[in-house]
Amino acid sequence: MPSSRIALLQSSGRPGDTVRNLELIAGAAREAAAGGAALLVCPELFLTGYAIGADVSRLAEPADGPAADAVARIADEYGIAILYGYPERAGDGAAARLHNAARLIGPDGSALADYRKTHLYGGFEEKWFTPGEVPVVQAELGGLRVGIMICYDVEFPENVRAHALAGTDLLLVPTAQMHPFQFVAESVVPVRAFENQLYVAYVNRTGSEGEAGDGSGAAFEFVGLSCLAGPDGTTRARAGRGEELLFGDVDSELLRASRAANPYLRDRRPGLYGSLN
Amino acid sequence: MPSSRIALLQSSGRPGDTVRNLELIAGAAREAAAGGAALLVCPELFLTGYAIGADVSRLAEPADGPAADAVARIADEYGIAILYGYPERAGDGAAARLHNAARLIGPDGSALADYRKTHLYGGFEEKWFTPGEVPVVQAELGGLRVGIMICYDVEFPENVRAHALAGTDLLLVPTAQMHPFQFVAESVVPVRAFENQLYVAYVNRTGSEGEAGDGSGAAFEFVGLSCLAGPDGTTRARAGRGEELLFGDVDSELLRASRAANPYLRDRRPGLYGSLN
Repeated sequence: MPSSRIALLQSSGRPGDTVRNLELIAGAAREAAAGGAALLVCPELFLTGYAIGADVSRLAEPADGPAADAVARIADEYGIAILYGYPERAGDGAAARLHNAARLIGPDGSALADYRKTHLYGGFEEKWFTPGEVPVVQAELGGLRVGIMICYDVEFPENVRAHALAGTDLLLVPTAQMHPFQFVAESVVPVRAFENQLYVAYVNRTGSEGEAGDGSGAAFEFVGLSCLAGPDGTTRARAGRGEELLFGDVDSELLRASRAANPYLRDRRPGLYGSLN
Repeated sequence: MPSSRIALLQSSGRPGDTVRNLELIAGAAREAAAGGAALLVCPELFLTGYAIGADVSRLAEPADGPAADAVARIADEYGIAILYGYPERAGDGAAARLHNAARLIGPDGSALADYRKTHLYGGFEEKWFTPGEVPVVQAELGGLRVGIMICYDVEFPENVRAHALAGTDLLLVPTAQMHPFQFVAESVVPVRAFENQLYVAYVNRTGSEGEAGDGSGAAFEFVGLSCLAGPDGTTRARAGRGEELLFGDVDSELLRASRAANPYLRDRRPGLYGSLN
């Protein structure tokens, strides 16, 4: 299992402007590839923006829609894998529905995995999206088994444990994590990596956007603080609050040594956990 | 559900000297009661010491043995509940076995709950102890539902989740947490409290003791850092590295408000977590 460098695009892009956000992905892909990264991870709903109200429906696309084609061309041009969040339109007519989704595209432009957020957060998401029903989505990338979840999904320990049991080495988590919940970015994410003995790349939006929908008229305030958390309990890379392209290395030797020193998966007693289901 | 103050006895006592450790419990109970605490929590195997080799067998007692009687008298004298860790001798003859156990005694001296560690840690514990088979042990105390686990048990998210689903408000965790694993005390414990929306009282030993059994001849180095972690992600009280009687308040209003703001238990999707068992 080789080591690989990844790049985390901490940015809110330009909410409501898909064309501009594709340009931003292209620029980040170029910079990430130049910096030696094999994978670029973008935040939740990066393609369209997060707090864009009804535009989330207007701008939604099928998983293999034109934006997917555009990202595939970017990935192929720079030879870098890209994970991006977007609102997915699935089905037609009366069966049509929206998902808060993410697609992973390989460095040759091929689609490697599609994920739909299983744990929706708050009134805005519940109004627009249908939750996904597949908890563990994985792909092989550069010798690593990567998994995908989105934002609130990672706050549920059962959910990340399912990835660990399925062999995920590197969990990619586009997010839109907001004030006052920065404890999640600061503490929950590193603990998820440690207790499951895998890497977690948590990639957030920044600054204020839209309305939080709590009746106050106040905007969402995204906290940044994107990170690459390691299996040994250390945070290998951590962004500040503003826009940033953050690099971090996934070290296969560290993963091996940490798993030997912290045998949580071996020491589990699944027979005792029956009440969780 | 009223609020209550608890006292955490961060100490290694005197390993191998049960009589002296009972005196230390009595002194701490007096001081804790004088400070307004309704409950005193002592570390893992506090009655006998942790790294005492074969003495763990020689000093083991039945759950209702003479040491239990002595602690019951202390609890009754000071009108304070006491949780203490000890090596339990269960069964007779060929069926005899040792458990790494804890007993909770009420402020009137009555036994409220007995727990046996379900997740043993490392060669020393695996050599001497038989793991317990009951994951969730609870008791009602002063209007709170308290739960009990020991040390390594709390590092498994499934295990604490089972307590949350069973309604635990305050999880008591005697521990013997050692260098270089202080990430557990510093980060894992506060995250357990947050993700499960309950209080966790984590009560550790201090300083060096015995031999770690890793072949180096080096002693265990217990890291202290006992804490009362709150459901809102804040650490309500935190000890240093040395001996200390730490006080913290379990606030029922904070518990209620935090559960309303962080509806993890409501937002779980148990149908997706089937692969955990």
